[in-house]
Amino acid sequence: MEKRLVVALDIKDGEKAIRMARDLSPEVFAMKINWPLVLYSKPEIISEIASFSRVICDFKVADIPNTNRLIVERVRDLGAYAVIVHSVFGHDSLSAAVEAAGDTRVIAVVSMSHPGAREFIGPLGDRLLDLALSSGTYGIIAPGNDPETLSALKSRSGSLKIFTPGIGAQGGDPAEAVRAGSDYLIVGRAIYDSPDPLGEARRINDRISKATLPQ
Amino acid sequence: MEKRLVVALDIKDGEKAIRMARDLSPEVFAMKINWPLVLYSKPEIISEIASFSRVICDFKVADIPNTNRLIVERVRDLGAYAVIVHSVFGHDSLSAAVEAAGDTRVIAVVSMSHPGAREFIGPLGDRLLDLALSSGTYGIIAPGNDPETLSALKSRSGSLKIFTPGIGAQGGDPAEAVRAGSDYLIVGRAIYDSPDPLGEARRINDRISKATLPQ
Repeated sequence: MEKRLVVALDIKDGEKAIRMARDLSPEVFAMKINWPLVLYSKPEIISEIASFSRVICDFKVADIPNTNRLIVERVRDLGAYAVIVHSVFGHDSLSAAVEAAGDTRVIAVVSMSHPGAREFIGPLGDRLLDLALSSGTYGIIAPGNDPETLSALKSRSGSLKIFTPGIGAQGGDPAEAVRAGSDYLIVGRAIYDSPDPLGEARRINDRISKATLPQ
Repeated sequence: MEKRLVVALDIKDGEKAIRMARDLSPEVFAMKINWPLVLYSKPEIISEIASFSRVICDFKVADIPNTNRLIVERVRDLGAYAVIVHSVFGHDSLSAAVEAAGDTRVIAVVSMSHPGAREFIGPLGDRLLDLALSSGTYGIIAPGNDPETLSALKSRSGSLKIFTPGIGAQGGDPAEAVRAGSDYLIVGRAIYDSPDPLGEARRINDRISKATLPQ
């Protein structure tokens, strides 16, 4: 069975990131990296990790259409499997990313779960999801530690793949997230801070497998 | 008189970026760079450009508080003068950037002028400006090619410095932008695509100077 675990390498250490990608690759669907890792190492870390595992560039791309295009073209050429792009900057910014991505997938942010997300983007959630649906994106980010919001997004998201952070250290339970509609579960600290990251990844995969068995 | 021209190095070529920073430094307040330049060269390009000129990292920082903090700490340590951060992700994400920035300034995005900006963030403009005002940011981005919006933002922005893109190739007139309230004028293509970038920078500075003379 294909793995559904995405490990968020929210770390600065490029050597550790490559080591974890190599060691964890049999247990993961993809590794997710973000800007701090690039800023503390180099852009080519995307390709280096991609030699072991799919790479999701969680770059929260958030600019005008032309800049979004240039960012996405570059991460595509560096071998990223997917790139995470904000939808809140409108149809043209999101479409520019999708058009530039080619075979690289675009995963749209349509909700976030830190407290400040409630101020502006939270109330826009339904419209942001509509935009993701109409823009040719591959998937969306939905909260793995908020089953109610996750279920609501799932019910309206058609064939979009659902990637859920917030699992593990941030309170989300893998089995519960799967039942609420998560396709891919993003786990960070619980794995990369573990004394036994591979063992922890296996334990989470076991929990995902059990939750997806026919009842 | 201190220069008020910011050159947007919206290019991919690191060598050209450094050459332009060196050659244009007497005529500019700062050079503005964005993610594509980093992705096509290396993070340390920030420090290299900073050896010639102030550097504004137009990274449209757009993540949860902790990731914003890590991005801003790194650009601060690489010697950036300022970093551009989105306000639409709420008080905690913006404040995390301001707290991490130290002596590096945070410039908040409170409006954008591509068509898709009208869909979601446009209507939030007043509230985004209020957040920038209450979060200890140094300045805001305001459209240099829309004097009406620029004046409206200026009238409510207190002591925030106003940085205005959209000058030159995108239609904004330097003198008009200054009169509408711009403190720093951001010019990209009109300079970096010019056969004579230094001459073009001087011409724009002349226009700014004339617009700021006592009438």
